[in-house]
Amino acid sequence: MSDLQSMDTLVSLAKRRGYVFQSSEIYGGTGSVWDYGPLGVELRRNVMDAWWSAMVHQRDDVEGLDSGILMHPRVWEASGHVEGFTDPLVECKHCKMRFRQDQLGASACGQKPSKAPGETDSCDLGEPRLFNLMFETFMGPVKDAAATVYLRPETAQGSYVNFLNVQTSARQKIPFGVAQMGKAFRNEITPGNFIFRTREFEQMEMQYFVEPGTDDEWFEYWRAQRLEWHRSLGIRGEKLRLTPHGPNELAHYAKTAEDIEYEFPFGWKEFEGIHNRTDFDLGRHQEYSGKKLEYVDSASGKRFVPYVIETAVGVGRTMLVAMVDAYREEEVEGDTRVVLGLHPRLAPIKVAVFPLVKKDGMPEIAEALHKELRAAGIPSFYDTSGAIGRRYRRQDEAGTPWCVTVDGQSVEDGSVTVRDRDTMDQSRVAASAVRAWVQERLGGVA
Amino acid sequence: MSDLQSMDTLVSLAKRRGYVFQSSEIYGGTGSVWDYGPLGVELRRNVMDAWWSAMVHQRDDVEGLDSGILMHPRVWEASGHVEGFTDPLVECKHCKMRFRQDQLGASACGQKPSKAPGETDSCDLGEPRLFNLMFETFMGPVKDAAATVYLRPETAQGSYVNFLNVQTSARQKIPFGVAQMGKAFRNEITPGNFIFRTREFEQMEMQYFVEPGTDDEWFEYWRAQRLEWHRSLGIRGEKLRLTPHGPNELAHYAKTAEDIEYEFPFGWKEFEGIHNRTDFDLGRHQEYSGKKLEYVDSASGKRFVPYVIETAVGVGRTMLVAMVDAYREEEVEGDTRVVLGLHPRLAPIKVAVFPLVKKDGMPEIAEALHKELRAAGIPSFYDTSGAIGRRYRRQDEAGTPWCVTVDGQSVEDGSVTVRDRDTMDQSRVAASAVRAWVQERLGGVA
Repeated sequence: MSDLQSMDTLVSLAKRRGYVFQSSEIYGGTGSVWDYGPLGVELRRNVMDAWWSAMVHQRDDVEGLDSGILMHPRVWEASGHVEGFTDPLVECKHCKMRFRQDQLGASACGQKPSKAPGETDSCDLGEPRLFNLMFETFMGPVKDAAATVYLRPETAQGSYVNFLNVQTSARQKIPFGVAQMGKAFRNEITPGNFIFRTREFEQMEMQYFVEPGTDDEWFEYWRAQRLEWHRSLGIRGEKLRLTPHGPNELAHYAKTAEDIEYEFPFGWKEFEGIHNRTDFDLGRHQEYSGKKLEYVDSASGKRFVPYVIETAVGVGRTMLVAMVDAYREEEVEGDTRVVLGLHPRLAPIKVAVFPLVKKDGMPEIAEALHKELRAAGIPSFYDTSGAIGRRYRRQDEAGTPWCVTVDGQSVEDGSVTVRDRDTMDQSRVAASAVRAWVQERLGGVA
Repeated sequence: MSDLQSMDTLVSLAKRRGYVFQSSEIYGGTGSVWDYGPLGVELRRNVMDAWWSAMVHQRDDVEGLDSGILMHPRVWEASGHVEGFTDPLVECKHCKMRFRQDQLGASACGQKPSKAPGETDSCDLGEPRLFNLMFETFMGPVKDAAATVYLRPETAQGSYVNFLNVQTSARQKIPFGVAQMGKAFRNEITPGNFIFRTREFEQMEMQYFVEPGTDDEWFEYWRAQRLEWHRSLGIRGEKLRLTPHGPNELAHYAKTAEDIEYEFPFGWKEFEGIHNRTDFDLGRHQEYSGKKLEYVDSASGKRFVPYVIETAVGVGRTMLVAMVDAYREEEVEGDTRVVLGLHPRLAPIKVAVFPLVKKDGMPEIAEALHKELRAAGIPSFYDTSGAIGRRYRRQDEAGTPWCVTVDGQSVEDGSVTVRDRDTMDQSRVAASAVRAWVQERLGGVA
């Protein structure tokens, strides 16, 4: 049994099974945006539903929010993004090409600056300049500086500017949190590693507002919660690690920060961050908006600007972790079996239902069972095409935990076989009991 | 009992109860984007889940997709949006202000063109010019024409360019559909009517690919399906109507089109469209990409570019229809009772649990019941604050179908009262039976 060795293998499976397609592929792609196909969109839903359940529905102290991608431009002045959300670039004075300063040496780009004598289009580099990673656009009919707005680079600021609206309408008391899931955009100079670093991406962020002085203990609490959540989705513990930011790595707003990293085929990489953002953001929005963003404790009368503990994880990165961690190849009777061993909660299809052959009353029984499962809210897939072994292998690659086969015996005694994706064991179950059998196995996780 | 008379009443309730906040309110707002608060985000989820269930999960012939907001710019040349997605504007040659031509007379804007003699900043209107409604931005480090990309004005094109990827990976046969939910952006000159017309909005669109010649009957089929879906969410039939587009109203791609309209306080307005887009879009993408987008029938060997029947509805507009339709005021014992009578499937909170008083063992029973419901996946809200009548009224406004109260008798015999939002009737149920009582009533709709 072997793990995923190369991202190309996963990219290929992802396209073949309808998980991930290159955006605008028929036009040559964009190089930095990916589309989720029929199975990918379900994996995405399952990841997001699991996060929302754990962070919002199963708690009384976290409220949901969905703020806009386009916000008032002053938000990004207050947050520091207009001034500080930058990468250093050097531009060729001659051809106007731009290069990321810290990657000049390593870049494999064909247009890398060269100084060959006599080459008239050779690059002539200027001084490094700061390039802002926010996408800019114009709102309203006039394209001028006054109409400039940004595509948000994080959902967090939407939670800060709505802090008092949420607290008041939901009648929450400190400590409490605001959770958001949604798209964000960063004009990365070098996107890459499949869906790991993209210019358009989706975040799941939670801002937890606490009394100053209690922030260190809440930081510990949320770090533990978030690590446990990834384990609860079946991610192998030995592939996960926590890495604190050193003093020189901390963002301008952070007192402490820690990354949750996963060991991808391209190395250990951060896919979730837990940050103690202090009162920086609320304080700046107070200053820039002129509106108080204080919490008043109704019992003690104490007033303060809360500290914020943030947990921020990418949807695409969580999907990538789930797929990479689940991928394995096995030798089975001289053949290679490819399995996407996703946790049943994350698997797009929970059950595939097959008639062994397309006759003798088998399709009728199988189709009725498929419809019964579907009506009960269990994602089910009905397939009649190809040899049964081939149908099993397709579902192994798709990540489907259970396959149900209707065979000759089913027509006689109403029993069917249920095949387990991971062990390949088959057991006989009454067709009428399959729904409860599956619900029981999903029950603990749904 | 009276319906909603004025949008201001709903805007106020929506803010007070945490349904909808003005985006970036502390900075004076953006005037065209709205944020969903703790209850709004759940109403949004329930609307989207209901659509996805009906359109994808409960069908074998529709596949889900989630394509990017940023696509290759050629997509929008092929679709006709770069050339044709425009409104006519007139610009003042002097002050550079722009005005929508068809609204010059009716506009209440203080900067409306005037010709008062001697006013040096009086407007001097030029010829009308076409203003494109797509938001433009730049991808990559160089801001030039070659880097221009657009925020998608519809999700549909993502489904067209992925047509073959979806069909092949999901092994679908014609007729089949591709469903998407996601954000889209239109730089409307005059946004308004609360969340009805916004510049950032969310769509639920389904593209159904059919053999040419069968398109008229599939158009009829989907029109009936979509109307029935809105009724199934409790929207009153007399407030819904179908309005076909006349020959002069049809979009450039459409053979036939019909709107589903609702009677808002501001008049009958379209909130869903059903369109026969013919083979226009796939044909254009074939032409512009140079890639075949044909379907090959494996049985007959027939090849053709499919026709498309599209159903397109706004998430925000569906939420607005649900809220407007559900709003009512009643006289109860000399008081006005405000009720948001949302269908239980759409209601953000399904059950609120109250101890009658905060002593005598009532909070313990109530909290245990709240946690039991929550763990079973039933959104529940626990509230101990204020007189019981006040707590009921808050939940009436929030749209919660059932309130459960733990009183003195509960401590003695384990029974609780369940109050119905619409009838205000109370019945006694064993606390241990409440979960099944609620699941039964949600069962037919969940």
